Amino acid sequence: MKVLVLHGPNLNMLGTREPEVYGTLTLEQINVFIINRANELGVEVVTAQSNVEGELVTLIQDAAGWADAILINPGGYSHTSVAIRDAIAAVDLPAVEVHLSNPAAREEFRHTDVVATACKGVVSGFGWRSYLLGLEALAAAQKDGPNNEG
Amino acid sequence: MKVLVLHGPNLNMLGTREPEVYGTLTLEQINVFIINRANELGVEVVTAQSNVEGELVTLIQDAAGWADAILINPGGYSHTSVAIRDAIAAVDLPAVEVHLSNPAAREEFRHTDVVATACKGVVSGFGWRSYLLGLEALAAAQKDGPNNEG
Amino acid sequence: MKVLVLHGPNLNMLGTREPEVYGTLTLEQINVFIINRANELGVEVVTAQSNVEGELVTLIQDAAGWADAILINPGGYSHTSVAIRDAIAAVDLPAVEVHLSNPAAREEFRHTDVVATACKGVVSGFGWRSYLLGLEALAAAQKDGPNNEG
Amino acid sequence: MKVLVLHGPNLNMLGTREPEVYGTLTLEQINVFIINRANELGVEVVTAQSNVEGELVTLIQDAAGWADAILINPGGYSHTSVAIRDAIAAVDLPAVEVHLSNPAAREEFRHTDVVATACKGVVSGFGWRSYLLGLEALAAAQKDGPNNEG
Amino acid sequence: MKVLVLHGPNLNMLGTREPEVYGTLTLEQINVFIINRANELGVEVVTAQSNVEGELVTLIQDAAGWADAILINPGGYSHTSVAIRDAIAAVDLPAVEVHLSNPAAREEFRHTDVVATACKGVVSGFGWRSYLLGLEALAAAQKDGPNNEG
Amino acid sequence: MKVLVLHGPNLNMLGTREPEVYGTLTLEQINVFIINRANELGVEVVTAQSNVEGELVTLIQDAAGWADAILINPGGYSHTSVAIRDAIAAVDLPAVEVHLSNPAAREEFRHTDVVATACKGVVSGFGWRSYLLGLEALAAAQKDGPNNEG
Amino acid sequence: MKVLVLHGPNLNMLGTREPEVYGTLTLEQINVFIINRANELGVEVVTAQSNVEGELVTLIQDAAGWADAILINPGGYSHTSVAIRDAIAAVDLPAVEVHLSNPAAREEFRHTDVVATACKGVVSGFGWRSYLLGLEALAAAQKDGPNNEG
Amino acid sequence: MKVLVLHGPNLNMLGTREPEVYGTLTLEQINVFIINRANELGVEVVTAQSNVEGELVTLIQDAAGWADAILINPGGYSHTSVAIRDAIAAVDLPAVEVHLSNPAAREEFRHTDVVATACKGVVSGFGWRSYLLGLEALAAAQKDGPNNEG
Amino acid sequence: MKVLVLHGPNLNMLGTREPEVYGTLTLEQINVFIINRANELGVEVVTAQSNVEGELVTLIQDAAGWADAILINPGGYSHTSVAIRDAIAAVDLPAVEVHLSNPAAREEFRHTDVVATACKGVVSGFGWRSYLLGLEALAAAQKDGPNNEG
Amino acid sequence: MKVLVLHGPNLNMLGTREPEVYGTLTLEQINVFIINRANELGVEVVTAQSNVEGELVTLIQDAAGWADAILINPGGYSHTSVAIRDAIAAVDLPAVEVHLSNPAAREEFRHTDVVATACKGVVSGFGWRSYLLGLEALAAAQKDGPNNEG
Amino acid sequence: MKVLVLHGPNLNMLGTREPEVYGTLTLEQINVFIINRANELGVEVVTAQSNVEGELVTLIQDAAGWADAILINPGGYSHTSVAIRDAIAAVDLPAVEVHLSNPAAREEFRHTDVVATACKGVVSGFGWRSYLLGLEALAAAQKDGPNNEG
Amino acid sequence: MKVLVLHGPNLNMLGTREPEVYGTLTLEQINVFIINRANELGVEVVTAQSNVEGELVTLIQDAAGWADAILINPGGYSHTSVAIRDAIAAVDLPAVEVHLSNPAAREEFRHTDVVATACKGVVSGFGWRSYLLGLEALAAAQKDGPNNEG
Repeated sequence: MKVLVLHGPNLNMLGTREPEVYGTLTLEQINVFIINRANELGVEVVTAQSNVEGELVTLIQDAAGWADAILINPGGYSHTSVAIRDAIAAVDLPAVEVHLSNPAAREEFRHTDVVATACKGVVSGFGWRSYLLGLEALAAAQKDGPNNEG
Repeated sequence: MKVLVLHGPNLNMLGTREPEVYGTLTLEQINVFIINRANELGVEVVTAQSNVEGELVTLIQDAAGWADAILINPGGYSHTSVAIRDAIAAVDLPAVEVHLSNPAAREEFRHTDVVATACKGVVSGFGWRSYLLGLEALAAAQKDGPNNEG
Repeated sequence: MKVLVLHGPNLNMLGTREPEVYGTLTLEQINVFIINRANELGVEVVTAQSNVEGELVTLIQDAAGWADAILINPGGYSHTSVAIRDAIAAVDLPAVEVHLSNPAAREEFRHTDVVATACKGVVSGFGWRSYLLGLEALAAAQKDGPNNEG
Repeated sequence: MKVLVLHGPNLNMLGTREPEVYGTLTLEQINVFIINRANELGVEVVTAQSNVEGELVTLIQDAAGWADAILINPGGYSHTSVAIRDAIAAVDLPAVEVHLSNPAAREEFRHTDVVATACKGVVSGFGWRSYLLGLEALAAAQKDGPNNEG
Repeated sequence: MKVLVLHGPNLNMLGTREPEVYGTLTLEQINVFIINRANELGVEVVTAQSNVEGELVTLIQDAAGWADAILINPGGYSHTSVAIRDAIAAVDLPAVEVHLSNPAAREEFRHTDVVATACKGVVSGFGWRSYLLGLEALAAAQKDGPNNEG
Repeated sequence: MKVLVLHGPNLNMLGTREPEVYGTLTLEQINVFIINRANELGVEVVTAQSNVEGELVTLIQDAAGWADAILINPGGYSHTSVAIRDAIAAVDLPAVEVHLSNPAAREEFRHTDVVATACKGVVSGFGWRSYLLGLEALAAAQKDGPNNEG
Repeated sequence: MKVLVLHGPNLNMLGTREPEVYGTLTLEQINVFIINRANELGVEVVTAQSNVEGELVTLIQDAAGWADAILINPGGYSHTSVAIRDAIAAVDLPAVEVHLSNPAAREEFRHTDVVATACKGVVSGFGWRSYLLGLEALAAAQKDGPNNEG
Repeated sequence: MKVLVLHGPNLNMLGTREPEVYGTLTLEQINVFIINRANELGVEVVTAQSNVEGELVTLIQDAAGWADAILINPGGYSHTSVAIRDAIAAVDLPAVEVHLSNPAAREEFRHTDVVATACKGVVSGFGWRSYLLGLEALAAAQKDGPNNEG
Repeated sequence: MKVLVLHGPNLNMLGTREPEVYGTLTLEQINVFIINRANELGVEVVTAQSNVEGELVTLIQDAAGWADAILINPGGYSHTSVAIRDAIAAVDLPAVEVHLSNPAAREEFRHTDVVATACKGVVSGFGWRSYLLGLEALAAAQKDGPNNEG
Repeated sequence: MKVLVLHGPNLNMLGTREPEVYGTLTLEQINVFIINRANELGVEVVTAQSNVEGELVTLIQDAAGWADAILINPGGYSHTSVAIRDAIAAVDLPAVEVHLSNPAAREEFRHTDVVATACKGVVSGFGWRSYLLGLEALAAAQKDGPNNEG
Repeated sequence: MKVLVLHGPNLNMLGTREPEVYGTLTLEQINVFIINRANELGVEVVTAQSNVEGELVTLIQDAAGWADAILINPGGYSHTSVAIRDAIAAVDLPAVEVHLSNPAAREEFRHTDVVATACKGVVSGFGWRSYLLGLEALAAAQKDGPNNEG
Repeated sequence: MKVLVLHGPNLNMLGTREPEVYGTLTLEQINVFIINRANELGVEVVTAQSNVEGELVTLIQDAAGWADAILINPGGYSHTSVAIRDAIAAVDLPAVEVHLSNPAAREEFRHTDVVATACKGVVSGFGWRSYLLGLEALAAAQKDGPNNEG
């Protein structure tokens, strides 16, 4: 199983950006955690980060050619990007949205989630562990096959 | 580590209720899955279900005396219950909200989540696996201790 | 044909509660009227009343085992209860919502009806006769079978 | 007792219009059903249909001269017509609004009902039987006289 | 004069729940304060607490048989419960709503108060003293009789 | 203890203004009641009334030099005055807002309360007694000192 | 000067329709009052009434060929009719909207006025005198010519 | 008959303020027009202007002692002033609101009118003539007495 | 192929109505353009205009008997008419909505389009050419048959 | 005449993306259709696609140097992009917005169109033919010159 | 060049009011800073402060007779005062609005700015320096004359 | 002191884009003005422009390595970009938002400012001088050090 792990805007800042909210680990360290868990799960991951909405769209589109699933943290684009939502709907792959923090407990403008309307599920609030949990969810769904429950 | 696993209204109907949305497993079967995973994680769980908003409040309150964390699927009360939200805030325990389906992709009246404003995180959309993922998140947070990142 | 007739919160107060709005008949008297009409229609009814949202949910769930239809006056829960709505959707039974008064002509907070989104139809504004009309509607639909028009 | 039965816009299309939603009976057939039931109830009915909002207003006004009650399906005008609402309020006659389908379970723009704010009650969701139930409600209210309960 | 003092959801948690918001006194201690003041005022009080919305409805209904007034802290149900509101309107007793904290200065979802629309008055923000002030208000209104000013 | 008692717009009309809503007592009579109760409580009060929003702002500011607390009925300014709200926040004094009637049970434009967001608490619905109850609340808070509960 | 005086839906019911709101005079009597005042002002009026939105549109359009101004009471169409609004904007004539009652003091759905956005001015709340005042306004504007003030 | 004619904020600027919107006449000239018409109508007027919301409140209150009616142009306070609205409701005098321009055809924030909810009627859009028309309306209502139609 | 070309309210005013917005051509001239293009496309058109919402509904219904498609400019009814929307949905014919101007660039109340929710597509902003483009779209869709792309 | 044809995000996915909504043709095939029609119309087109909002902005800006018009399908950016809207307003070129599907008949978040507020017109719902119709509209407008009607 | 510098409600409290938000300088000290900078810029300033909305209106009006520009911090009136907005529009002088703090980063009720709609520009968030920057902006605009860019 | 001066989308069009709104100076000329003023202030500036939201995010992130402050005109992204807002919050640098025009006086969709919620202050409405004023504000804040007032 191959999974595209996509980090949206500002996630390259992890470790320096508001550590009291997002933790002190860097994106590279988190990617290592993700890859390690992927190895345990027998999943192959490709990680990518972009601050550019349209590049995220393109990365999602390209995944249609090689990946079996998408794990995405759309960051600030979660709340407004119809383009990313449409890209996820366009490629025929299961996608899981993750967030480091819990948007429901933050500013009002983070309570609308356009991207999630095209995703299979959402994991939010567990810091870098949100990625690992999302990855497990994708791996389990893959293993269960089309007849899986839930 | 001890966790209260709380199932809200209609979850006792699992297996018969709209199986194309919620799957064909019964709540008893799901509880077995949860307990098995809890055993793997070295976590002790107590499961409970109630259709009554106020009973869920009481169960949360009682957990203050014995549990280390709460895993809750508030079902239809997620969207309106200030009382459950206040109960979670009142007991000094980390709580994770889970959903079988992805509310963001369903009816408009499921897009507001009052209970989540008092939770550490949310896992939604992975059927019964949402519970397992939420449980892992709680176990990991427990292991990391107060200095955990995220 | 068996029908669960469910009275929601405060309907046990009928006859004493704001009689200029709800009339002077008691719930017991209304139940007699319902049973009489049910007899005429060859329908067997079981009546129940509860002030507790979750008990109404459970009563609906239990009906799945014995009833052919549900006649429900959700009272004040009509406007907020996702849990009752989900219970009705969960059991595979036709449901009709009735109201003594006409919510459209009352306070703004009575204009939203969450429960009705899962019902076959609604009858409101005819006092205790709303129940009889709803019962007839259920009986007729039963008689028409799956090919009925409308 | 004399009742004006008023069919609003597009109801003349019944039988051909989206039969999966509205059934295959024509308006003429439904009028026969209404007249038959009226005979049983000892009620005299006059039926009329118009696609024109203002003609419906005029028909309601004219009823002030001869009818004892109004049974109206305002169709698409239900949601916006202050003029029809005012006409019903202007003539001193009890009115019942009926709908073939259940607007609460349809598009958002069908959830507001301006006309119903001037009606005694509403029956919706039972196809052509909604008319019969509404007629019964009017007949019963007439029989009960000014002291009727409800 | 007899007064039903009703504590809603989570108020049984007082003393342990977010003490920086609600203080460190337990509900039992507060009830003692209430009873002491009641004695000074020559008022007889019966206190009750429930986390269940419908039980609060029933307690209010039962008060119709013995109480002269109701003092209620509906907690989180204040903002959504049409059922409690209707129960208060149904029993013919003056009711006063109290809050420990000042909802106007808290989260947005606490700014709507459905229950208060059926109450004589509201006292909020004075911790346990809110109850005492509400009790005094009821006692004074009782003493003033039907011709009291205000 | 010294308290500024501030009456906002139209309160000078008391006794003549819509007596069925506000009672027949004049503001002078109410001030006497307030002063009497203040004497009982060992509190010194200064009363003032103004129809002018900015004068109320100035009176609040001036209180910073001599008063220990503020008791204010902002009348119609309650719903829109950021200036009065800011004045209360600017002076470092506890403030209690009072209303003769219960705004929650009146017109929609009285349901928003900007001034209350800067107050310790609110008392509404008890006519002139609202002032006395608010005064007691201030006196009690003063006596309890900084460690008071609630 | 020639003025089209247009009465919208339900105004033909005047004298019988809710006389406590609209008075007991018939439309014919009001037209006589209008004509008398028109004579005094040296204005020639043509009066018309229709319950049909589109006929009102047509009457406005036709006025372009002979009238100098329009005096219109759009009744219930005031609040929704873009078509009447566009007709008034289309003919190059000054228009005054009148209402018998004061919509600002009535139901919420009467607070939006689409038609008024294309009118020179509005007179509301003075019963049949609203027409006379509107007529005077048009006559005065005519006399003042293009340089009139205001 | 005695009428208080009240000009709100910025109306003292007439003649210099945005003449393309409000005309070139000064407030003094307009007052002359008002007085002349008042003489014709046998009405005695007292005119006043204030930029201060609370002074307008006081002027309205004082009118209770000598005037029979109020003619008011609340200017920018029309859209927010609950205090002026309450003052008009408090004094037992008929009031007419006038506007030089037509708020319905201007900015969105001028479409809400709080003050008008307490007035008998409104005249807007006719420049200084709006005052004269409002005055006539008051004089006519006075002449008609309590039995006047409309 | 036969197409009903329907012009809504005020379009009969073309050429005289606000020419800076809608151009100087009359509806007759535009109909000639439409017919000429229809001839080129081998399409037979029947044109009709009505200011009456209900007549437009009837014209659409009648088209079910003879036309293959509908080209409609609903004018001001676009924004509110559920009845026209339902008529289009009722007849089983492809419909295209056209506008002379671009509603998105005009007043707020033109930004909602109820009728378009039942149409295949929309062409707006190209004056009379909007009709020709809409006609071409219908002709092409007809030629492509049920397997056409898009 | 030279036209920039701009395809926004996800349009490069055409042919594979949700073919039941968008058809099976690829963007390359559609570009061929556009170029063929352009040749017939004597128009020179340059086509471009980008998933990046800012690149679309730059492409629009660059068109100011060589193009006579812009044909743009902004895809998901239609609903939020003030930047694209401003770019179109900034270059002094007529622009037409096209959509493959009809946004009015899709999700709520597609009903707002920010980009269209700066466009001459919109064509939506005709699949790839929307482009051809938009191109014709631009060519015709060019031919008509500054005096064109509509 | 002469500039009226206007301080709105509560700004006279500077130095004592919430110093962690507004700083410890008094309004007198800030005025000295303003005057010093004005001297450097060759600008003559007159400073004034009022808590009264209407006095601010009057001060703005009076400035029409002597000032070349207005520098105003409307404080809490920024968010609601149509009267101050209209006064600024009425006098033909450029106005700049300043704020000590940044309203966009504060409470929701500070996000609407009615006064700014009539101002040339806004400077907010720089404490007392906001005034100096606003003054420079006015001085520069004056120097640039009517042809200045921006 | 080093400042990143960031120009958002379409600002590279300055001098050609709607000069009546934005002036005739090019971005290069404005950059010269900025650099000159920076020299006077002893500030080193690096200017950059991008139409791409994500590139602006990256430029802000990179500034964390070398700059002391950020001066940004986010153009059309001001109103929707959570990503830019988060980038500013992520780098630990004071930021000032500037606008050439005054958004409060323009279209409704420019009244929301997401980016400003993470900025120290805002300067808008003074054309290219807005940049200079923002630069001064940053320089002064730098000079004042952490103890600066305001």
